[in-house]
Amino acid sequence: MTIRVVIVGQGLVSTHFVIGVERIKSGELEPYGVPLAKYNMPYRIEDIEIVASYDVDESKVGKTLYDVAEQLVKGVLPIPETLKNIVVRRGVHLDSLKGLPFKARGLEEEYNSVEKAVDKLVEEFKEVKPDVVINAITTEPAKAFHSIEVLEEAIRKYDKARLSASHVYAYALYKYAKETNSKAAFVNVIPAPLARDDAIVKLYEEADLIVLGDDGATGATPLTADLLEHLAERNRYVLSIAQFNIGGNTDFLALTIPERNEMKEETKSSVVKDILGYDSPHYIKPTGYLEPLGDKKFVSMHIWWKTFNGLEDELVVNMRINDSPALAGLLVDLARISKALLDRNVKGTVYPVNAFFMKDPGPRGARNLSRIRAFYQMIEYLKSMGIIQG
Amino acid sequence: MTIRVVIVGQGLVSTHFVIGVERIKSGELEPYGVPLAKYNMPYRIEDIEIVASYDVDESKVGKTLYDVAEQLVKGVLPIPETLKNIVVRRGVHLDSLKGLPFKARGLEEEYNSVEKAVDKLVEEFKEVKPDVVINAITTEPAKAFHSIEVLEEAIRKYDKARLSASHVYAYALYKYAKETNSKAAFVNVIPAPLARDDAIVKLYEEADLIVLGDDGATGATPLTADLLEHLAERNRYVLSIAQFNIGGNTDFLALTIPERNEMKEETKSSVVKDILGYDSPHYIKPTGYLEPLGDKKFVSMHIWWKTFNGLEDELVVNMRINDSPALAGLLVDLARISKALLDRNVKGTVYPVNAFFMKDPGPRGARNLSRIRAFYQMIEYLKSMGIIQG
Amino acid sequence: MTIRVVIVGQGLVSTHFVIGVERIKSGELEPYGVPLAKYNMPYRIEDIEIVASYDVDESKVGKTLYDVAEQLVKGVLPIPETLKNIVVRRGVHLDSLKGLPFKARGLEEEYNSVEKAVDKLVEEFKEVKPDVVINAITTEPAKAFHSIEVLEEAIRKYDKARLSASHVYAYALYKYAKETNSKAAFVNVIPAPLARDDAIVKLYEEADLIVLGDDGATGATPLTADLLEHLAERNRYVLSIAQFNIGGNTDFLALTIPERNEMKEETKSSVVKDILGYDSPHYIKPTGYLEPLGDKKFVSMHIWWKTFNGLEDELVVNMRINDSPALAGLLVDLARISKALLDRNVKGTVYPVNAFFMKDPGPRGARNLSRIRAFYQMIEYLKSMGIIQG
Amino acid sequence: MTIRVVIVGQGLVSTHFVIGVERIKSGELEPYGVPLAKYNMPYRIEDIEIVASYDVDESKVGKTLYDVAEQLVKGVLPIPETLKNIVVRRGVHLDSLKGLPFKARGLEEEYNSVEKAVDKLVEEFKEVKPDVVINAITTEPAKAFHSIEVLEEAIRKYDKARLSASHVYAYALYKYAKETNSKAAFVNVIPAPLARDDAIVKLYEEADLIVLGDDGATGATPLTADLLEHLAERNRYVLSIAQFNIGGNTDFLALTIPERNEMKEETKSSVVKDILGYDSPHYIKPTGYLEPLGDKKFVSMHIWWKTFNGLEDELVVNMRINDSPALAGLLVDLARISKALLDRNVKGTVYPVNAFFMKDPGPRGARNLSRIRAFYQMIEYLKSMGIIQG
Repeated sequence: MTIRVVIVGQGLVSTHFVIGVERIKSGELEPYGVPLAKYNMPYRIEDIEIVASYDVDESKVGKTLYDVAEQLVKGVLPIPETLKNIVVRRGVHLDSLKGLPFKARGLEEEYNSVEKAVDKLVEEFKEVKPDVVINAITTEPAKAFHSIEVLEEAIRKYDKARLSASHVYAYALYKYAKETNSKAAFVNVIPAPLARDDAIVKLYEEADLIVLGDDGATGATPLTADLLEHLAERNRYVLSIAQFNIGGNTDFLALTIPERNEMKEETKSSVVKDILGYDSPHYIKPTGYLEPLGDKKFVSMHIWWKTFNGLEDELVVNMRINDSPALAGLLVDLARISKALLDRNVKGTVYPVNAFFMKDPGPRGARNLSRIRAFYQMIEYLKSMGIIQG
Repeated sequence: MTIRVVIVGQGLVSTHFVIGVERIKSGELEPYGVPLAKYNMPYRIEDIEIVASYDVDESKVGKTLYDVAEQLVKGVLPIPETLKNIVVRRGVHLDSLKGLPFKARGLEEEYNSVEKAVDKLVEEFKEVKPDVVINAITTEPAKAFHSIEVLEEAIRKYDKARLSASHVYAYALYKYAKETNSKAAFVNVIPAPLARDDAIVKLYEEADLIVLGDDGATGATPLTADLLEHLAERNRYVLSIAQFNIGGNTDFLALTIPERNEMKEETKSSVVKDILGYDSPHYIKPTGYLEPLGDKKFVSMHIWWKTFNGLEDELVVNMRINDSPALAGLLVDLARISKALLDRNVKGTVYPVNAFFMKDPGPRGARNLSRIRAFYQMIEYLKSMGIIQG
Repeated sequence: MTIRVVIVGQGLVSTHFVIGVERIKSGELEPYGVPLAKYNMPYRIEDIEIVASYDVDESKVGKTLYDVAEQLVKGVLPIPETLKNIVVRRGVHLDSLKGLPFKARGLEEEYNSVEKAVDKLVEEFKEVKPDVVINAITTEPAKAFHSIEVLEEAIRKYDKARLSASHVYAYALYKYAKETNSKAAFVNVIPAPLARDDAIVKLYEEADLIVLGDDGATGATPLTADLLEHLAERNRYVLSIAQFNIGGNTDFLALTIPERNEMKEETKSSVVKDILGYDSPHYIKPTGYLEPLGDKKFVSMHIWWKTFNGLEDELVVNMRINDSPALAGLLVDLARISKALLDRNVKGTVYPVNAFFMKDPGPRGARNLSRIRAFYQMIEYLKSMGIIQG
Repeated sequence: MTIRVVIVGQGLVSTHFVIGVERIKSGELEPYGVPLAKYNMPYRIEDIEIVASYDVDESKVGKTLYDVAEQLVKGVLPIPETLKNIVVRRGVHLDSLKGLPFKARGLEEEYNSVEKAVDKLVEEFKEVKPDVVINAITTEPAKAFHSIEVLEEAIRKYDKARLSASHVYAYALYKYAKETNSKAAFVNVIPAPLARDDAIVKLYEEADLIVLGDDGATGATPLTADLLEHLAERNRYVLSIAQFNIGGNTDFLALTIPERNEMKEETKSSVVKDILGYDSPHYIKPTGYLEPLGDKKFVSMHIWWKTFNGLEDELVVNMRINDSPALAGLLVDLARISKALLDRNVKGTVYPVNAFFMKDPGPRGARNLSRIRAFYQMIEYLKSMGIIQG
């Protein structure tokens, strides 16, 4: 019983994911950072098998995962030999790396057609038979379609301005599933709206697929959610929230580009009103890029509030957090849960899972919960589905 | 429909409580810091009526609550005129202020008998007819009895070494209730073990009384609980926890005395193992006294952990927190909930309420939960009792 | 012996300055925040007399300083009655408030001529006879001229794009001094380059005037300078520096406009290379606007370095700082020093004074020192000039 | 031209010192953390030669420095082979490790005589010919003698209660120097008062020796000194100072023993009044022991003050600092400076050097300066002595 996983975007997150899974398989690593590691589930971590990986960065395409890992984490992590078995395939670009210092080229550029790029992906999916496709490309500007027709038209017309790479990958998985009558899940851990896009959700429901998303919740935002819940439960009146993030990985570099930053600000800010019940003034966004910090970002947060008798209290949080492994640990469970849900005939998007794992949980309009609440609701849900034991 | 409240220990917490309640009654203050202010409950905040107050500090006994408030918070808070109606009565001392720079004298010293002191309290309770007695005296050394006989013997023999003032007050309320066939609740927000003392819980069950406790959960400890829950849910392995607290109020002064400090360290440390599931090395205790900080303590916390792939993350929390109003806000709901529970014939101690409001929830051996979990479990419980609406 | 002070820009800083000076005069306020208050100097704080104030905000022009103070700090500070004696005059705008939510109009707009606006200022200066003009307008985009001809041409041609309000005020003071053969000092505490503009410095040298600047050093930047000096003296190798600033006053609002932000980033960043000797990667700039923080900004700083044996240490600084009073306290000494220097026939700009008081000390190309070094060098200089006693 | 260095106390600090020196000699390590590395001095770092090491811990005596380093820093630092050449000798105990979980035995216990222990040390010093003896034993309780007679009597009488190991080592060096007519320096980087003990200083002056001390200034205290200087220069009125330190090395373990803690609190607190000019209320001391933190301590500091117009500002500093390498880096320069001073016939204690390098600079009664001031005064002094170039 294996889970066949395809990776989209072989950056730091995916590299941590594949290394960590291999190290856990070989018994050298404790599964810290994998939320449900202690629960008894139908699929074990060891059941995860990486079957393909896509990227558009010319310095990665054609290399093995081992080579890519050497570029990214040599000296930081031991790199398992088994990663030499997978070669990075060329994926869809659609300007998703535009403005960043990488030489990138996508299938659609080779074919001068998005449709043909989709066909190529479908063909390759037929070969590798994915259960789960994980989308972990660099944050790209993207907008929901909400209409299947508009989405399909954008693909047909190669509408670069409207179309995101994320949408194309999700669409290719749908097409593969339709043609082969297979089941599969698409897990979207970047801010592009897929689980919040009615078009994607409808397509996936129709074809018995699952889409989980959007934007994996790690680092400062889920902690902010729980801190706000903590304050809300005491009816403390939050006067303002400032949250700074600075790091030195590709995602922070990408977020210095304003339109990408806005993608992130949106998913990050939605927690405030959803949890407090009022829109406390806030400044929450990736703040800057500072290369020496690397993947270990610095986070600073200031929250203050009115307590009983109208007096004011103040809280400051500072963190040094390894950005990519935090998300990679979530991917382990997202893969395991997705497969177990597919086995149980779940389709469309799955709010109780999204609510814990995602910064902006689908479907469209769904509410952000504090993470601690979301965790226990998810546990209940997974129990009710027989995925974890009572 | 009023809630008749007797206060034990007219220090900063109680003074914030009585001022805040009066200011809310007069409409000048929003009920921030009162956890359930937004819920529809059988008793409103305005139903709280202070009917008596006890202390042993000679500078307070015989003064009105207004006078005491002027000593403690003049210039910080407006002091309602209505506080002129209550005069502080002499209570039980039993060395609970020993070693502190206060001139104190208790009823038992006047009568040279704890039994007579109890009788005096019972007599006064018959006059003021309390629904709820709130114990907010300065942290005192105290040990559970677990045996009714041993407790009663200590009272009979005036055993200063064994007996705490908190136990005597709780016992007096029991005796009052027995003699008058009344119901009442004892709310213990200091570390003395009452809700965790089998002797007290049995006496209270027998007489249809309620005891809630122990040690009101405000400030750093409940936040630590929620932070640890946050980490535990992601299976991050906590390497160590350091938590410093320093303030300038009487409680911090009291905690410079080692045996009092240990009382606090015990209630504060129990969260670690209960929530994480392992006893991560920790240093969690009131650290020092620094007079200019006054009631607004400084808290600093350091937590670090292993994340996915064995890398290490780090979290630092710093706070400036008004100590007394935070607890005073909880008292508002503890009074309201206690009375509503009495109305519904609940007796003994009430874990679902303690688990949210108390640092070390009774009964003896009960588990500490993260506050966010405890909050929702309490809400469910209160709904099931018809105290808040579905 | 009085110091006749003219204020330009009657915002929070100037309002704190005039209130503080009046409160010190009346004996109700200790001179905390005034660096040299404990030194024996030719001019006492009590010698400062405010003789005029300029602004272009329509809600201030024509109002008394008392009225303006009520708008800005009512309830925060007691407002002296003596402030009713000064009425805010209309000054020069030159789009210095453009993009901000204020209705502003300058003399040059009334006359449709900068030259006439200058003449009007000169005429008014003749009436009020300033010893010191303090420029504390909101941060405006501005560039140095370095050529007197180019500066004078921009004034003649009303070249809005090239000219800053700060330059026009400085020029008007020069013209006043020439025409009346008076001495005076211009103190520039905003980032506009004046003490670093060869044109201004030459004009001032020629006319026996003094210009001090640029950008008053308060808050995070001087502290960063001293922290870096501390590290440099131990030969610790600084890996990176992140410094976030967020506040809710007009200056932070202004700094959300990119070209103003750049003015500030420039003056803030110059400390790094000057003190460390190498350009350690850094992110140092005003980061955002959050209205509820008001004038008390939140600062967060992260610095890490290599220590002996190549290991890494880490420092995080968090502050809540009242922005305006910090600068207002410096103005007290800048006024006193300026007048004493004029008495001693000093002219042009004065590096030993700028080096302590200013973020980017003039003249052009001058080096930034750590504040502690700059302080003792300034003390030596002032002793050598007989302005403070050995 | 070598500097022959004897180490007393082969713990983490000394181990970092010997490893770092060897790594710098071999060219593999940059001299970060060595304050004067960039200055041109008579002795280079490469001139340092370790000639002997003393300890009383049975697990170290008789082992090579390489073996000891493997016990302490294996996996953290590369350990040079050259450390295999030095074997740890048995030193003086005098209960300096009492209460700590080490099996310790000193020469005086072997001989049942302190005098004989001194003779043994003198004999060994004659063999190794030290230029500099560095005292880096674990913090021990110790009191100054101020009288040579009383010191010598305590040695004669083997007065364990009165005598510290530090004093005995310093006395042995004196005796060695007298007998051989050699020059040497004793560098004391622990809190025991030696450079502040008139008895030691007089002996050393008489014999043309140098004693530097006491308590090497690394970590939080020198930073506090510079922060207070920063505030004092702006005449900000400091309301209180809290400084917490927690770590997991032997020194923190030792400081959980109250009488050792007091040694440290004394040297740490002296900065406040010396720099501010008034004794601002403060809590400054090693706070606790938390094993997983190891040698990288966590420091938290809270300082607040009144600024201009009586408003209050607040500063919080958090640090993760490698304790031992910070001090080891200072030892490099202390050794180099000591030898250069001996060459220039300096004797007794040397305040301008102590003032920068030591928490409580000798001689007795000497004032604590901010570090930045002390640094530049030391540079001037070293220039005046021709030890560094103008």
